[in-house]
Amino acid sequence: MSEPKIKDSPAPGYVPPLIPPLDAGVRGAALARLDRLTKPLGALGRLEPLAAQLCAIQGTLTPEVRAPHVLVFAADHGAVERGVSAYPRAVTAQMVLNFLAGGAAINVLARQHGLGLSVIDAGVDAEFGAHPALIDAKIRRGTRDYSAEPAMTREECLAALERGASIASMLVERGANALVLGEMGIGNTASSTLLMHGITGRSLELCVGRGTGLDDAGVARKLAVLKAARSRAPAVADPIGLLMEFGGYEIAMLSGAMLGGAAKRAVIVIDGFTVTVASALAARLEPRVLDYAVFGHRSAEQAHRALLGHLGVEPLLDLGMRLGEGTGGAASVSLLRSAISLFTDMATFESAGVSDKDSA
Amino acid sequence: MSEPKIKDSPAPGYVPPLIPPLDAGVRGAALARLDRLTKPLGALGRLEPLAAQLCAIQGTLTPEVRAPHVLVFAADHGAVERGVSAYPRAVTAQMVLNFLAGGAAINVLARQHGLGLSVIDAGVDAEFGAHPALIDAKIRRGTRDYSAEPAMTREECLAALERGASIASMLVERGANALVLGEMGIGNTASSTLLMHGITGRSLELCVGRGTGLDDAGVARKLAVLKAARSRAPAVADPIGLLMEFGGYEIAMLSGAMLGGAAKRAVIVIDGFTVTVASALAARLEPRVLDYAVFGHRSAEQAHRALLGHLGVEPLLDLGMRLGEGTGGAASVSLLRSAISLFTDMATFESAGVSDKDSA
Repeated sequence: MSEPKIKDSPAPGYVPPLIPPLDAGVRGAALARLDRLTKPLGALGRLEPLAAQLCAIQGTLTPEVRAPHVLVFAADHGAVERGVSAYPRAVTAQMVLNFLAGGAAINVLARQHGLGLSVIDAGVDAEFGAHPALIDAKIRRGTRDYSAEPAMTREECLAALERGASIASMLVERGANALVLGEMGIGNTASSTLLMHGITGRSLELCVGRGTGLDDAGVARKLAVLKAARSRAPAVADPIGLLMEFGGYEIAMLSGAMLGGAAKRAVIVIDGFTVTVASALAARLEPRVLDYAVFGHRSAEQAHRALLGHLGVEPLLDLGMRLGEGTGGAASVSLLRSAISLFTDMATFESAGVSDKDSA
Repeated sequence: MSEPKIKDSPAPGYVPPLIPPLDAGVRGAALARLDRLTKPLGALGRLEPLAAQLCAIQGTLTPEVRAPHVLVFAADHGAVERGVSAYPRAVTAQMVLNFLAGGAAINVLARQHGLGLSVIDAGVDAEFGAHPALIDAKIRRGTRDYSAEPAMTREECLAALERGASIASMLVERGANALVLGEMGIGNTASSTLLMHGITGRSLELCVGRGTGLDDAGVARKLAVLKAARSRAPAVADPIGLLMEFGGYEIAMLSGAMLGGAAKRAVIVIDGFTVTVASALAARLEPRVLDYAVFGHRSAEQAHRALLGHLGVEPLLDLGMRLGEGTGGAASVSLLRSAISLFTDMATFESAGVSDKDSA
């Protein structure tokens, strides 16, 4: 009876990396310690559950952020020729060179916060020379135009997931225990809109936004392209199928990197709209991946709020940034460090001789 | 005709420090530069106006955060005996000792962000030995109980404003160009509630909150005490009068520190509810002080949101913290540094050879 099923299944065969469960005992011990620190109960707000999560991920009451690393996945999108972005396709490659030269926003934030930085060519429509900060994982020079055909083949999709996981895994083996995920790809907000629509079932109208700066007419044009694309493959709802139809190579690789990093017990710091879409796809493949995720920043891209709500998560920062690259994630690393330092370095009521509330 | 007026005036004689206007030319040049950086227009969100503000405050396109310093003003409140706080009065002095020993949340955050830290005894009901991080500016060992009589005399109030201004001024003269203001005082959320009510005209019911952790019965008890206090002096609405009737020495000193720091062109980083109340009072004395203010964090104290709205400002962080001490302000310093680094270190479209939107 199973043979026809396998034959008919649109997306068989992908096995996500094995992700270990968090250490609930350590989390409980962490929460208990937080209540003994010299502050009113719960007064560190969001930094308290964050500290407990970091303890549980690392399985220790002395967690640390070690060799944190930003991974910027870059790729081009076939549909850009249809006018779904305010910027020309060439900007993807130009920005990769800007990252390698150290002049982009993510470079500045990585330097400020002491983060390593690698740029991954997941599928940029250009050839780059060798550079110590560049990882060549190119699948193809840009996806196909999803308004006319599937953006990528199954083989390409699975390769992108695999390469993302391998890259994350390699970084962890080299010493990083926190990975900040970012992206660069002209047109990838449009691709993310289709993917969000496919994951959440919300209408394309509710998932579309201005991206890097479309005006009203631009948003209307983008929406028409996205509707045409969706009408070509209206029923696809599984994560692999959605990535094949509408994805970007950088988005598939981001999903893979999340899964691969979590499998190695790394903290995965999520940036804006596109990385959140990739995390939602990863969570469909293995829900446990979200236990390892810290959402860094709420993007100004309007659909991001709804997608975060769909995932039931709340980002640490809300600065109205909307440039991707991992910038929101990088900025939030300071708060991960604060959560850990407060947890490990604050005095307790007993050690400091401070009267607790109950003694009032 | 003017003589009776002077005689009747409840609060004559206070002259705030002279605060210079911001440099509008530098602000405009800063905004123009932001539009040439390699990112979509406005894509750094709130960090863009923040960078321009810091440029305008410092009068330069190469701003910096130099020797930033946290000032924690501490004092006791007579009304605490009436049950307006979840913690006993003794905790103020105990926490001062905790600050001096380096074990409180603000110590941890100051170390993380490289901030100097001074604790100012504005009116704690205890005597402390000399300590390099302690500034003795004590007015009195705690205010009087405002439910029975004015919390402080006019002389005390003016002395607190003066001392706050002098301390801020001294720090700037020693090299700091950014001051993070914090406070510690069991009962000062209750005092701040009365002050907010007096400033904004909102009902006490809308201004009251849980402070460091009152339950519903505790909030009701606190509200009754605050209503009794207000009924004793129902018409007072000027900032000096409000401080005299309902203030705390640390709150008056915070207002003075804001004014004194802004007069020296320092960036003033505002923390939670109580510091925001002090800033609203300072703004009544000299509205220009707000040009120098950066609001660091929205407290979980429910009235803080309304007070920020009253001032027309939006804090950088919203982490649900509610412990004062300057913690929210200290955490936000990382974002001031980001705003500056992005502004000064990012490549421009021209320098990086990246196509701008208009070339699409």
